[in-house]
Amino acid sequence: MGQIGDEVKNKQVIFRDYVVGFPKESDFIITSVTIRLKLPQGSNGVLLKTLYLSCDPFMRMLMDSQPSAFSYFPGSLLFGYGVGKVLESAHSDFNEGDLVWGMLKWEEYSVVEDPANFIKIHHTDVPLSYYTGILGMPGITAYFGFHDICSPKKGEYVFVSAASGAVGQLVGQLAKLMGCYVVGSAGSKEKIELLKNKFGFDEVFNYKEEHDLNAALKRCFPEGIDIYFENVGGKTLDAVLLNMRPHGRIAVCGMISQYNLNQSEGVHNLMHLVLQRIRMEGFSAPDYFHLNANFLEAMLPYIREGKISYVEDTVHGLESGPAALIGLFSGRNIGKQVVAISTE
Amino acid sequence: MGQIGDEVKNKQVIFRDYVVGFPKESDFIITSVTIRLKLPQGSNGVLLKTLYLSCDPFMRMLMDSQPSAFSYFPGSLLFGYGVGKVLESAHSDFNEGDLVWGMLKWEEYSVVEDPANFIKIHHTDVPLSYYTGILGMPGITAYFGFHDICSPKKGEYVFVSAASGAVGQLVGQLAKLMGCYVVGSAGSKEKIELLKNKFGFDEVFNYKEEHDLNAALKRCFPEGIDIYFENVGGKTLDAVLLNMRPHGRIAVCGMISQYNLNQSEGVHNLMHLVLQRIRMEGFSAPDYFHLNANFLEAMLPYIREGKISYVEDTVHGLESGPAALIGLFSGRNIGKQVVAISTE
Repeated sequence: MGQIGDEVKNKQVIFRDYVVGFPKESDFIITSVTIRLKLPQGSNGVLLKTLYLSCDPFMRMLMDSQPSAFSYFPGSLLFGYGVGKVLESAHSDFNEGDLVWGMLKWEEYSVVEDPANFIKIHHTDVPLSYYTGILGMPGITAYFGFHDICSPKKGEYVFVSAASGAVGQLVGQLAKLMGCYVVGSAGSKEKIELLKNKFGFDEVFNYKEEHDLNAALKRCFPEGIDIYFENVGGKTLDAVLLNMRPHGRIAVCGMISQYNLNQSEGVHNLMHLVLQRIRMEGFSAPDYFHLNANFLEAMLPYIREGKISYVEDTVHGLESGPAALIGLFSGRNIGKQVVAISTE
Repeated sequence: MGQIGDEVKNKQVIFRDYVVGFPKESDFIITSVTIRLKLPQGSNGVLLKTLYLSCDPFMRMLMDSQPSAFSYFPGSLLFGYGVGKVLESAHSDFNEGDLVWGMLKWEEYSVVEDPANFIKIHHTDVPLSYYTGILGMPGITAYFGFHDICSPKKGEYVFVSAASGAVGQLVGQLAKLMGCYVVGSAGSKEKIELLKNKFGFDEVFNYKEEHDLNAALKRCFPEGIDIYFENVGGKTLDAVLLNMRPHGRIAVCGMISQYNLNQSEGVHNLMHLVLQRIRMEGFSAPDYFHLNANFLEAMLPYIREGKISYVEDTVHGLESGPAALIGLFSGRNIGKQVVAISTE
């Protein structure tokens, strides 16, 4: 199905228009075009078959009603991280059959004119979908966010919000491997059980069942928090600030609770940064992509030796993508949300 | 006036009760007691004559209606940084005639049972009052806050709020000495002129005359801000976050605009920490007091060679202290607010 030169159907997901509030399925158009599987004449790029697409919270920001330079453009294809296979290459760095991960358009086949930012996949003894998560952008986020930004020490008290998500589940386990005490919060009974039973968090709570986040944190951290891995923002951050220990660190990875609000919630307790001499630092995974080799050297053994568990939530087919993507913002996914497009 | 063994009047300032909103003069009681100038029998401390007292924004937090472990206690003496002279010593580290700075009670003569935290003053070719400011806690705040927390590089864009205050005026000049482009904000015409003409800021604005702080910052920083030395919090911080450059640093020294509010303003733009990978870090001068020798080695030549200017706003007599202290919060002082108690 789909040899070079064939005419094939190419399913695509189009971003309809800028989004206000929570995104809906109708903000995306699923369409199909017929293409010839062939690099255009004169191309210096690659022809890619999409294998897996990743649903990531940052994608909501690209849909914003106040568009930025990086936003999706109304009427154009959605894009995000994904895994693909090179079907044909006119680029000297890539050969037919190469597996890569990077920023892909949401379509089954893509011509990529500038593949220089793709990262090649050399280790295929693990599922290829892992390169959308534990071995891809979210894994790099968790690994460097925790080890570089949080400066963890054995025995420290670590709190992770959105703890069953792609990044949170890894941060929690990396912290346990460092000998930290780790507490996670999530928004459902199933997720809470996963944190406790599969990922080995020391303590967990369901934030939707806590009337007073400050009290929940005081219960879980009678000695206070050394490290907070921030995935959600808003009220959670405010409660955390009240519970930080001196010289604590807050790594700000994202603020998913804020992305669908027209105005983000105000954070009131920043004075605690001074009172406790806290470092709060934002970071972004692409700043660490050049360290991918070091990252794989650390992470692959953890996976192969079963020292880190990893949970994916997979839907199949591009047409299932929009619902999976918007499900992130109501917390419908359990674990990393992946869209499987093709297994080969 | 006041030899060891004499009976003397000892004027004092007493903290009446926890404060809600802006402090008023009536929150303080000025009183006078008669004491004998002598260390009590069995004391291991020192008897101190108060020379200068310092008015610092952090003192508002110790008055708070939600008291903490460090708060002033209703009915007890106010305290804060100051300069004193040892009249009598029973402590092996101190001798009669020693000059010291540290945490002093607001009274003319004090028995200090645990003087271990005092820092001795060895350089007296500069005014002794400087040890409440440029050579004391505010100087250490400016010096290490800027050089250690802000990691400045030549040519970077630096913004300082409350820029004519004790800390701000020094940060601005230290940044100029580093070869940075420096913009300061303050709240009056006189202060603005001081910034421009005396302290050599490249650009200045009066925040009270700007309807749109974001626009003011965009005008002064068309390329954005690398370093923000945060003294005020609230709306200023929110506007700054919108204008930070990638990998910017925010040193959080204090948030004077928030101290008199019953609930601090919410800060909405923290997501920019992630978007621009910003480090925002609170710090506290006492963490650097052990580096006082290094600090003096850097700062004394700047003063002696006239490379740094320093402006004080001095009132005389303990009875003028409360008005001077509360004046900080309406911005009445121009430069470092000092209360001169005795010149010798």
